[in-house]
Amino acid sequence: MILSALLTSVGINLGLCFLFFTLYSILRKQPGNADVYAPRLVAEGKSDQRRDFNLERLLPSTSWVKRSWNPSEQELLMRSGLDGVVFMRIIIFSLKVFAFAGVVGLCILLPINYMGSQIIIDFSDLTNMSLEAFMISNVNDGSKWLWVHFSAVYVFTAFVCYLLYVEYSYISAKRIAFFYSSKPKPDQYTVLVRGTPKSSTDSLSGSVEKFFSEYYPTLYLSHYMVHHTTKIQKLIDDARKVYKKLSYLKSTQSTSQRFGRVGFWGICRPKVDLLEYYEKKLEELEDNVRMQQSLLSGKEIPAAFVSFKSRLGAAIALHIQQGENPTEWLTEQAPEPQDIYWPFFSASFISQWLGNVVVIFACIVLTVLFFVPVVLVQSLTHLDQLETWFPFLKGVLEITFVSQVITGYLPSLILKMFLYLVPPVMIMLSCLQGYVAHSQIEKSASNKMLWFTVWNVFFVTSLSGSVLYQINIFLEPKEIPNILAVAVPAQATFFITYVVTSGWTSTASELFRLMPLISSFARRNILSKTGEESEVPSLPYTSEIPNILLFGLLGITYFFLSPLILPFLLVYYCLAYIIYRHQLLDVYTPKFETGGTFWPIVFNSTVFSLLLMHLIAVGIFGLKKIPLAASLTIPLPIATLLFNSYCRKRFLPVFKGYPAESMIKKDRIDQNDPAMSDFLDKLVTAYQDPALKPIQFSGRTDGRNAPLLASES
Amino acid sequence: MILSALLTSVGINLGLCFLFFTLYSILRKQPGNADVYAPRLVAEGKSDQRRDFNLERLLPSTSWVKRSWNPSEQELLMRSGLDGVVFMRIIIFSLKVFAFAGVVGLCILLPINYMGSQIIIDFSDLTNMSLEAFMISNVNDGSKWLWVHFSAVYVFTAFVCYLLYVEYSYISAKRIAFFYSSKPKPDQYTVLVRGTPKSSTDSLSGSVEKFFSEYYPTLYLSHYMVHHTTKIQKLIDDARKVYKKLSYLKSTQSTSQRFGRVGFWGICRPKVDLLEYYEKKLEELEDNVRMQQSLLSGKEIPAAFVSFKSRLGAAIALHIQQGENPTEWLTEQAPEPQDIYWPFFSASFISQWLGNVVVIFACIVLTVLFFVPVVLVQSLTHLDQLETWFPFLKGVLEITFVSQVITGYLPSLILKMFLYLVPPVMIMLSCLQGYVAHSQIEKSASNKMLWFTVWNVFFVTSLSGSVLYQINIFLEPKEIPNILAVAVPAQATFFITYVVTSGWTSTASELFRLMPLISSFARRNILSKTGEESEVPSLPYTSEIPNILLFGLLGITYFFLSPLILPFLLVYYCLAYIIYRHQLLDVYTPKFETGGTFWPIVFNSTVFSLLLMHLIAVGIFGLKKIPLAASLTIPLPIATLLFNSYCRKRFLPVFKGYPAESMIKKDRIDQNDPAMSDFLDKLVTAYQDPALKPIQFSGRTDGRNAPLLASES
Repeated sequence: MILSALLTSVGINLGLCFLFFTLYSILRKQPGNADVYAPRLVAEGKSDQRRDFNLERLLPSTSWVKRSWNPSEQELLMRSGLDGVVFMRIIIFSLKVFAFAGVVGLCILLPINYMGSQIIIDFSDLTNMSLEAFMISNVNDGSKWLWVHFSAVYVFTAFVCYLLYVEYSYISAKRIAFFYSSKPKPDQYTVLVRGTPKSSTDSLSGSVEKFFSEYYPTLYLSHYMVHHTTKIQKLIDDARKVYKKLSYLKSTQSTSQRFGRVGFWGICRPKVDLLEYYEKKLEELEDNVRMQQSLLSGKEIPAAFVSFKSRLGAAIALHIQQGENPTEWLTEQAPEPQDIYWPFFSASFISQWLGNVVVIFACIVLTVLFFVPVVLVQSLTHLDQLETWFPFLKGVLEITFVSQVITGYLPSLILKMFLYLVPPVMIMLSCLQGYVAHSQIEKSASNKMLWFTVWNVFFVTSLSGSVLYQINIFLEPKEIPNILAVAVPAQATFFITYVVTSGWTSTASELFRLMPLISSFARRNILSKTGEESEVPSLPYTSEIPNILLFGLLGITYFFLSPLILPFLLVYYCLAYIIYRHQLLDVYTPKFETGGTFWPIVFNSTVFSLLLMHLIAVGIFGLKKIPLAASLTIPLPIATLLFNSYCRKRFLPVFKGYPAESMIKKDRIDQNDPAMSDFLDKLVTAYQDPALKPIQFSGRTDGRNAPLLASES
Repeated sequence: MILSALLTSVGINLGLCFLFFTLYSILRKQPGNADVYAPRLVAEGKSDQRRDFNLERLLPSTSWVKRSWNPSEQELLMRSGLDGVVFMRIIIFSLKVFAFAGVVGLCILLPINYMGSQIIIDFSDLTNMSLEAFMISNVNDGSKWLWVHFSAVYVFTAFVCYLLYVEYSYISAKRIAFFYSSKPKPDQYTVLVRGTPKSSTDSLSGSVEKFFSEYYPTLYLSHYMVHHTTKIQKLIDDARKVYKKLSYLKSTQSTSQRFGRVGFWGICRPKVDLLEYYEKKLEELEDNVRMQQSLLSGKEIPAAFVSFKSRLGAAIALHIQQGENPTEWLTEQAPEPQDIYWPFFSASFISQWLGNVVVIFACIVLTVLFFVPVVLVQSLTHLDQLETWFPFLKGVLEITFVSQVITGYLPSLILKMFLYLVPPVMIMLSCLQGYVAHSQIEKSASNKMLWFTVWNVFFVTSLSGSVLYQINIFLEPKEIPNILAVAVPAQATFFITYVVTSGWTSTASELFRLMPLISSFARRNILSKTGEESEVPSLPYTSEIPNILLFGLLGITYFFLSPLILPFLLVYYCLAYIIYRHQLLDVYTPKFETGGTFWPIVFNSTVFSLLLMHLIAVGIFGLKKIPLAASLTIPLPIATLLFNSYCRKRFLPVFKGYPAESMIKKDRIDQNDPAMSDFLDKLVTAYQDPALKPIQFSGRTDGRNAPLLASES
């Protein structure tokens, strides 16, 4: 790709970003859009929706930047929990890494690359100049200047490892401090027990009661069996919908709306009194729910939430194998009650194990087969190929601007569109794996998405070709560095445009929230449903974390190959910093609190990126005919792996659970707290399935804000 | 190799075996040899050393076979602990596997191989007939008979997996039962704590006391700090030697021995009164020991044995991370007091981690460099090469018998000699890794030895050639099945002779105990040291388990390639069964009890053998031109890996610790035991370093059997 194509792409995306920013800063001031741009503030009642019109409302402003810049990390912790803080730390960590990389890359490596003469470039025509002038490919083979690149790889690795260590240490300290400062929470006192063995004398619930009260008489508090309640939950949802309609009908004054046709074939039926009709229907639904609830008792599945009187009690049940048979009485950390994902609740060891195996296979198949559209997209960057396929386009494609849009912008946009479809699939797969909490599902899906993205964006794009060719590479490990050293630098410009398109514009559109805006507009103006509250969303970790990490991988691998990518990355991270801070404060509300356990994913991914960089360095130095540098690079990945192994031992245990010391200290503090007996009373029912709580809609349809049912999620 | 060479080798080894058996059955009846052939019985005072001479003493007999056959598994458990039983179960498991393999191999595969005509063999001259007639190589390319081999691979894998499952389940049940039946043991109540953080206010011992008595006030019992006592232990050993000499001098009546020359240059010095001299020396040593002991107090290293009042207490400290910093307060299961290996006691996390890294590197280097002598040995099997190297040997080598001895016997003997040197090195490496118990060291060394043996005996022999060639194989994984399919069958006859030499004769010589016999003879007749008791040995797991597993690997991989190996293996396992039973009952005394944790090593090794067989099968079916069979074999390793993963989850946890259920039950039973308070009193001092106990030799030199010192190990 030539410089002008890159500039076109940068120009388009810069324009889009400014458009988004301007529109956002105007639209957010319109009172009707408050539930799009500050749903969290609306839900918390903090949004000041001044209905009076003034000119200021129509002018773009940057006050939001200041508002998101100001809050300290402590305030962020208060509002978004430790997960939000860790998410911002990922961006800060990346900023630090690429600020350093940018200084080294732009001040030292870029001039050296530019001074080389390996590639014959026409310097007179600047707009048509190839970007290869700024890449390592331009340094002459065997040149002594390559030792500068070699040193840069060493220094950069050392710097990244140092930052990783500092950050890991900082976050694990935060995690412990967060634990100390937390109020007693049901999940700290509870374990999820699966694989309750069937007994001939007792019911499942009786077995659980017997087991824990026998072995932990002083520590055991209570337990709650899990049931399959998908059916009941559906009925309750229906009832809630009917109830809402009813409330709306009652609140409107116009009698014209009271009569209407109902049912799917309603158009052919006579008009009825809707109020009467819905009231009857609601009662029917409620009776149905109560009947189903009564039918369920006794039909438990062999899983239970077992609560203990102290945190240490729960930890003992969690960390020590309970039953003599390791596939029975399996314990795991209970999620927070509101975090539980009830529909898929696989209880037995064998179904969980099989689920795992099946999902791993499905993931591999999805990851490998996804390359088809990516390769197709990749072929779009080669204009000549496009012309042979669609000869009628020849005339259009020869217009400079069109060709520049196509080569510079379209490919990464299409790729991005395809990638939007994957996170929901990954979440579904994680559900099937038997995770019982939204947080666990998101964490596992983040991991899957990360490797999916790395494979499909980085490797398939770099190695584009037949799938057999790609698999062959992994059967000839000796060749990997050389193949990567040829393939990866060739895609440098594609990835620069990818950063610009997928990084800049997507982040700006995250602020603009196009989809929620459209759906809110549609709801208000077309369906005219003004009364319904929209749910406050939570940060979609599954799609955002892999994205940020992919850019990290690109930056680390291209740092010494093509430093030109670094300023674009820095702009991306600055944008991400300010925008995600803003979103965390105004838009997203935390749905769960994992205590910062997303960080180890970031650590692993960064170490992987470093290893990949080393592999490419070995290949490049070999190709560039300084084999000594290639050999001297080999200790680097070994040292990085040792660093990784050390950090895993040094920090990871804190992210798997809390140390006994902290738990006992907290337990002691709480012992003297008079509120504890209240808390323990509530703990007994904290893990009740919302579908099994008694429901009561009818007869109380007298106000929208009535505490309508316990099952409100 | 031709049939006659194999027969020569079998003949020689059969002869040697019978010689060993005959000599053993005569020598063991001589009263003077009791400490060689039944040291355990001697130590237990059960050996009936009739001193009267009769003719029966000079006749070989087989009564020992019956005696070792008779005891039930329960009796073996009583005498040799669970480790002894598990060791015998390994042999029984192998016997079952190869009995099945033998039936399938000899009745179905061998005739099919023999019927083939791929290799032109002169069937008229039976003694010069090549053994390849019985191997898969003789089946015609593309023949439909190969599908029988294919089915055999599937059926055999299923059978082995079934047996593995049954055996794993049996041994884990035994382990739990053994735990229930065990008396309270100090190691069940104790954890080893390393990485005690330095405190400015407290001593290390004070920190430990403070930490555990603060957090586990009801469970904590006591602790014992570890010191570096190598120097003191050496002084005590010296003192003990002097004390023994003194006792011997006092017990002899002859005054001629009372005077002699002493010291290294004693020959030039005047004779002195030895009794006086040694008494003085003993007193000096004792004073020195006491001084060193008093100097040590306060100089603890940051490791301690912490004892709890219940098994559950120890398990809580063991399984839950204690300190906020995961590298401090590291807990691990304490070994039995008599099992502790005091000299190497690395205490800090970082030194342990570094030790691990260094040892892994050293192990890899040792394993890879060891191939040099093996390749040299391998070259001996090619007579023509030997003749070119040593032309003067030509005349000798042309004698049929000599050539047959050299090709059939010598190579594996020399290899065996080299292999004898490795276990001590592996044990040393395991010591450096920071293991603190003999049992842990032996287990870790067994694992190292296993992979060392598999690599150096199986792979290097099969793939002989330059080391670069071998490393290249692993950089081209696609080629591995083909290379193995060519190389492995070619070595079938070498491995048959290896089974005969290394399996039969070594096992028979295990019974004969040549080295202890010589050393005992030398001690009695040359050094005339009759008074000293010889130590009762324990079973050398480090060398024996890898050996048995290597034969299992050979049998599994050659099962369908060359079924002729199976009868030889069956004979080996029968010999091993009867001989090791005998040795466990009469010779070896258990030095430690790991509760059967050697079994997972066996499981892993067997699964690895199966995978290797599948790999070779894929290669062979490809070479034999039935690619469909090659492709259809691929699901087999995947299924085996799934089986492996299931078993790891289903059984392995039981081998890592005991379940809470069992521990609490045992604790409850013991609570009502009046002997418990006595036990807890003893527990307080159970983990005292023997070098720090008060010693008292002098002044009590009045009898050999005086309870001479607490530090007797």
